[in-house]
Amino acid sequence: MPAPDTVRIHLPDARSYDIRIGAGLLDDANSWQGLPKAATAVIVTNETVAPLYAERLCGQLRGVYGRVDLVVLPDGEQHKDWNSLNQVFDHLLGQALDRKTVLFALGGGVIGDMTGFAAAIYMRGVPFVQVPTTLLAQVDSSVGGKTAINHPLGKNMVGAFYQPERVIADLDTLDTLPERELRAGLAEIIKYGPIADAAFLDWIEVHLDALLARDKAALAHAVRRSCEIKADVVSQDEREQGLRAILNFGHTIGHAIEAGLGYGAWLHGEAVACGMVLAADLSRRVGLMPESFVERLRRLVERAGLPTQPPRLGADRYLQLMRVDKKAESGAIRFVLVEALGRAGLHSVPDAVIAETLVAYGAA
Amino acid sequence: MPAPDTVRIHLPDARSYDIRIGAGLLDDANSWQGLPKAATAVIVTNETVAPLYAERLCGQLRGVYGRVDLVVLPDGEQHKDWNSLNQVFDHLLGQALDRKTVLFALGGGVIGDMTGFAAAIYMRGVPFVQVPTTLLAQVDSSVGGKTAINHPLGKNMVGAFYQPERVIADLDTLDTLPERELRAGLAEIIKYGPIADAAFLDWIEVHLDALLARDKAALAHAVRRSCEIKADVVSQDEREQGLRAILNFGHTIGHAIEAGLGYGAWLHGEAVACGMVLAADLSRRVGLMPESFVERLRRLVERAGLPTQPPRLGADRYLQLMRVDKKAESGAIRFVLVEALGRAGLHSVPDAVIAETLVAYGAA
Repeated sequence: MPAPDTVRIHLPDARSYDIRIGAGLLDDANSWQGLPKAATAVIVTNETVAPLYAERLCGQLRGVYGRVDLVVLPDGEQHKDWNSLNQVFDHLLGQALDRKTVLFALGGGVIGDMTGFAAAIYMRGVPFVQVPTTLLAQVDSSVGGKTAINHPLGKNMVGAFYQPERVIADLDTLDTLPERELRAGLAEIIKYGPIADAAFLDWIEVHLDALLARDKAALAHAVRRSCEIKADVVSQDEREQGLRAILNFGHTIGHAIEAGLGYGAWLHGEAVACGMVLAADLSRRVGLMPESFVERLRRLVERAGLPTQPPRLGADRYLQLMRVDKKAESGAIRFVLVEALGRAGLHSVPDAVIAETLVAYGAA
Repeated sequence: MPAPDTVRIHLPDARSYDIRIGAGLLDDANSWQGLPKAATAVIVTNETVAPLYAERLCGQLRGVYGRVDLVVLPDGEQHKDWNSLNQVFDHLLGQALDRKTVLFALGGGVIGDMTGFAAAIYMRGVPFVQVPTTLLAQVDSSVGGKTAINHPLGKNMVGAFYQPERVIADLDTLDTLPERELRAGLAEIIKYGPIADAAFLDWIEVHLDALLARDKAALAHAVRRSCEIKADVVSQDEREQGLRAILNFGHTIGHAIEAGLGYGAWLHGEAVACGMVLAADLSRRVGLMPESFVERLRRLVERAGLPTQPPRLGADRYLQLMRVDKKAESGAIRFVLVEALGRAGLHSVPDAVIAETLVAYGAA
């Protein structure tokens, strides 16, 4: 088995950790060595992922921990809520598991966010390990320490910054990923080009078909480069005071789409993809980027099989939904706009300009 | 108005803050200057405290913030749960309040713990200020950054370490405190003698009547000294890895009493007072302290009008309840025991010895 690619995430206070990226990592005993000592490992996963990988992970962890438990949550963004979180607490407390417990998040971004948040607040903090099984989770949730649940009035509104002990991104788990979710994961990979690395955007355009065919070498590069870029940004701004906001390119409109349709109707990556196209259009309207960039991004999103046309919720509804977004500061709606290929920043955009884009794309 | 006593809490990463202790602080404009800039202040309080102090605090804060909101929760430990926390989130999100919001915890320990936890996890963290109006909250919740809610299976099982921007401990607010709650607050003050400061134990014995009579000078000294001792311990161990555990003297049995009777039946301070007497008895049984110490502490607790006799829940129930306590590590029940006057440490105690104490005090 080849040694995995490793991206080291550097953090203060002994919180640095590794992301290991490669094929076959789930069944590699090395993946599970050197983690925090604990009496019990609790795997948190969902109904879809459990039958695929839970038994194999259990088997590996039984070689390390005295006891291995499994908590299976319902699948889907619509279950990323307090009820699901409380199922984890009910298990932990029902089994009288104390602070010598380590949680393993086995699944996609929803499982990662919820398990990380559960770890952050169970007894004021226990360690956790990410085992992302979707492309989105491998490139996005692996870095940054963002954990959260949704609230009926907004996505990820309740959460914490909390770092995993390690991330094991086994590319083989992507073989079972539904086509639609693979494409959704590509949205976050595409994102890193315009905001941080023009050469990576070129690379994605060349290798998009290989990525869609789940070529392991292409996936390994895309995941590693995405994690590197995100780590670079996050290391300069762990608590999202400034620079880190650029990672939310496409997310302001994306979150509005998700909230407006009800969580789960569109996948997060689909909403972000569409949001990126509209944010590119905003970048053009305020004079930062040429029309050719909007068209280039729109075509790439389309080639990836992702939506470029937002749902028709009406301009007022969009504006209302975006105003509750965490990036909104005291009323003014701010967007991550592309300022040059490979560079982005936060910009306040007048409601009238936002409305123009919404109308142009059939959202209003 | 005399300058308030100030205890500075030193923390890394620009999180240091002041505890201001004195009479008349609520109506002193200086108390509310120099806090984090924000668009909106949200006062979180309860039905009991709101009619007494909310309007005065609102008035002060209106001089500083563009908008001041009030969230009134039900009163009592039995409401220290997710439902109450969610009332805060419903308000914040319903009003589309973003990260430029600062929360003010106006009330006792329950309000402080819940508001602090809400601040810790709302949009992954907004600033908050403690305005403790009970003696317990002034000496206990002011220092240490512990925030939490209860779970049906255990007290404070879900929470975070999160520090306030400032603590304003107005001793005048203690004038409206019910006698029973004043006495409960004294329990945590008494605690600091045996575990950290033999001279302070002497001082409390001499000034107990003045404290019970709500003498402002005596209260100021007791609150300041308690905060100083706690700050000293916490500064050496912010995340409760070791030393800080001594602050839980009386709490292992105390938590079992609270959980066993149902939260709210006994006040936290009452349960801790009784728990201290039993922990003193355990200290004697394992050979650390003489019988005279147990009797001295028992008498002081009794003079303070606090319970020295635990409810009869049965030894098995106590052991079961204590095993889920956060200090329990992988099965063995550990107690904070007094090792010498002014010094304490964590000790594993055999179930048989615990049972002896429970039987001797009529708990079994």
